[in-house]
Amino acid sequence: MTRLLFAAALGLATALPAAAQFRNAEHAIKYRQSVMQLQAFHFGRISAMASGRIPFDAKVAADDAALLDTIDKLPFVAFLDGTDKGGNTRAKAEIWSERAKFDAAAVKLQDEAGKLNAAAKTGSLDAIKAAAGGVGQACKACHDNYQQPQ
Amino acid sequence: MTRLLFAAALGLATALPAAAQFRNAEHAIKYRQSVMQLQAFHFGRISAMASGRIPFDAKVAADDAALLDTIDKLPFVAFLDGTDKGGNTRAKAEIWSERAKFDAAAVKLQDEAGKLNAAAKTGSLDAIKAAAGGVGQACKACHDNYQQPQ
Repeated sequence: MTRLLFAAALGLATALPAAAQFRNAEHAIKYRQSVMQLQAFHFGRISAMASGRIPFDAKVAADDAALLDTIDKLPFVAFLDGTDKGGNTRAKAEIWSERAKFDAAAVKLQDEAGKLNAAAKTGSLDAIKAAAGGVGQACKACHDNYQQPQ
Repeated sequence: MTRLLFAAALGLATALPAAAQFRNAEHAIKYRQSVMQLQAFHFGRISAMASGRIPFDAKVAADDAALLDTIDKLPFVAFLDGTDKGGNTRAKAEIWSERAKFDAAAVKLQDEAGKLNAAAKTGSLDAIKAAAGGVGQACKACHDNYQQPQ
């Protein structure tokens, strides 16, 4: 399991690996929420095209899908031990008590986002529709299990 | 100048281009702030390596620089007309009254981020240090001119 390393709090910044540089729990929470904000926007735009709510633009869809496929690993790095509380997080304790299951859900999202990226590169709206369903289900499954309702 | 198109507010979602899909000013503001949160984290980690505050990790630096070079165009799309107020934005009115100058500052950041990405791919800490200075100056120049102090 990823260990939480608070550089500033521990006063050990130079002894920490470069990969762990969140100042504190609030910082990690804000970071992962920011990534999810971007994911929601860019996937939301693809979904709106897939459902016909906005006109299909193959270039926009391909750019959105490529970005999603790039940022879909980022939020999970920030679900560190000790970040179950802080800020306005809605993370459930199960993220940490069922970590292997949570990590598998992250991998599922990344797989589906990879498929959506491949589909969007073809420029086919039908291919995008099919792949977007998989991404949407991966988002929903994780939120249903690991996010407290608002 | 980019026109602000509020899909939901206008009830014209299907008539709008796919590129403009913010629901309202708060949504656009939250989006650009989220991108800048990511930029701050990933550039902050490169800066910490460049200044010796954390150990240099060439892979982490290259990944951070590549991500910065990917997301450095995103926030500017969200500085739409009508988003000068709303949420907790600190955007100054000059963004809209001096738009050409603001847009030039955005291009400057993108140029410098491109150089940092190229430098980070070489794996040379010295090259990264030199290029990171340019990115830092581009960030600071824009914030000095266009962001209200906290």
